[in-house]
Amino acid sequence: MTSGSAIATKLAGWAGRVERALERALPGADQEPTRLHSAMRYSALGGGKRIRPALVYATGELLGIDPAELDAAAAAIEMIHVYSLVHDDLPAMDDDEFRRGRLTCHRQFDEATAILAGDALQVLAFSTLAASGADPARRLAMIDLVARASGTRGMAGGQAIDLAAAGRVLTVPELEHMHRLKTGELLKAAVLLPAALVDLGPAERARLDRFGAALGLAFQIVDDLLDVTGDPKLLGKATGADEARGKPTYPALVGIEAATARAAALHAEAAAELAPFGAPAGSLLALADFLTRRVS
Amino acid sequence: MTSGSAIATKLAGWAGRVERALERALPGADQEPTRLHSAMRYSALGGGKRIRPALVYATGELLGIDPAELDAAAAAIEMIHVYSLVHDDLPAMDDDEFRRGRLTCHRQFDEATAILAGDALQVLAFSTLAASGADPARRLAMIDLVARASGTRGMAGGQAIDLAAAGRVLTVPELEHMHRLKTGELLKAAVLLPAALVDLGPAERARLDRFGAALGLAFQIVDDLLDVTGDPKLLGKATGADEARGKPTYPALVGIEAATARAAALHAEAAAELAPFGAPAGSLLALADFLTRRVS
Repeated sequence: MTSGSAIATKLAGWAGRVERALERALPGADQEPTRLHSAMRYSALGGGKRIRPALVYATGELLGIDPAELDAAAAAIEMIHVYSLVHDDLPAMDDDEFRRGRLTCHRQFDEATAILAGDALQVLAFSTLAASGADPARRLAMIDLVARASGTRGMAGGQAIDLAAAGRVLTVPELEHMHRLKTGELLKAAVLLPAALVDLGPAERARLDRFGAALGLAFQIVDDLLDVTGDPKLLGKATGADEARGKPTYPALVGIEAATARAAALHAEAAAELAPFGAPAGSLLALADFLTRRVS
Repeated sequence: MTSGSAIATKLAGWAGRVERALERALPGADQEPTRLHSAMRYSALGGGKRIRPALVYATGELLGIDPAELDAAAAAIEMIHVYSLVHDDLPAMDDDEFRRGRLTCHRQFDEATAILAGDALQVLAFSTLAASGADPARRLAMIDLVARASGTRGMAGGQAIDLAAAGRVLTVPELEHMHRLKTGELLKAAVLLPAALVDLGPAERARLDRFGAALGLAFQIVDDLLDVTGDPKLLGKATGADEARGKPTYPALVGIEAATARAAALHAEAAAELAPFGAPAGSLLALADFLTRRVS
């Protein structure tokens, strides 16, 4: 069992690791085109909870993988996440002014630069995976995982469903489907990336898959809840934004109590999948606890 | 030597091939999220000159590669090109209303959908390469080529320089640098992709690299010229757009005559690189001739 303060220390360590990996992968702000490189660095460096990289490192710990071998995967999945935030914040999408307590990319720079910075972060994620040290077949497996999780059957598809759903009442299954695509698939990919680096039996891989799916959905329900009950200061962004936009959320659909219960049930489901792994799953379990009990 | 009408027949055949490959790779418009899939198909199918796929197939012919083995590369590079058009056409970028004689993606659908369609086409390009049949190391080499050509040292970087240059007078080397990044690198990648599928000596690979670089720049100078001297009906878009936006172009900088001469010199440079390959380079040479003498 990893305690709450132990996981906080681990999280800080993983955040530092992925920050350095991102720093290495991102072109310098002094390199042409400087404005584009600056915008990419502004969006990707120095902020964020680094949840996806933490899932990569924690799952890697469970599988006995040296963290240095996971840096490319951790940096790549964070680049995909950051690119999606930069594009989702655009005026034509969610039109957000603040992100991680700072101006959004298009407010700090301009819309065209933000579109290009997102595009370039996406491609940098794939170059980073392609250039990682692993065996070619394993690198391809990682590229395939990230591509599936971020395409129309994953993140981009979820965002499209989200946009189409604004102002409309969804059923709970529809909402869960949207959440699974929009955030769940990428969180699940973070768990499956380290599994692509080792030989793992199909049963264990399936356990990690189910763990990632349950945790991914729990995470998004907690995110919905924080938009209602969270502290804007801790979150670094305004709350109530989902409701103001008529966005479908879990608490809006079933109430705060039922949403909280659903997140707890999914957390238990996720934790149960880790039980057979025993002690090596300690950090990953503590991370799952942390993510479903977080306040920001 | 391949005659003008022979290359036209070849081009039509290659366009048909890549259309079928794109059709297979793109999710159906009846699949959720339908609006996003429709926007991707609207932008990628049924139009365009398919120049990058033609370069893939023509170089493949030179190297003796079965066209079926090139379909993934041809489709992927066209997806990257199409995504860049969809994003470049956005109001925050070039704000174009028509493309290939039809409404641009954001005019036919909406801005948010166009941003997502571009994002999703980019990721589909990488999944398509990752899932192609080639040996894993060769697939990775293709992914690396396309990623380099489309990132900040390629297409996205060139577009950033283009945006920053609007209304400013560039020197000829600055303009050539911008053109090489914005369109040259991806055209060069189209030539180098088939080379990643075979064992090729470094000297021959370097020839193809120089051929692609010279042709890529010649192509863009001709593009600039067509914006001044071309027929809007044949082009499927308005001419004079570059000048109206204060965009730096070759003819604006050095005049129509000098720009035409520079394109011809680059064409000769490109053709010279193919000479040692002899007869098998016939189609690629004819394609280079066609691309530098085109009227649309």
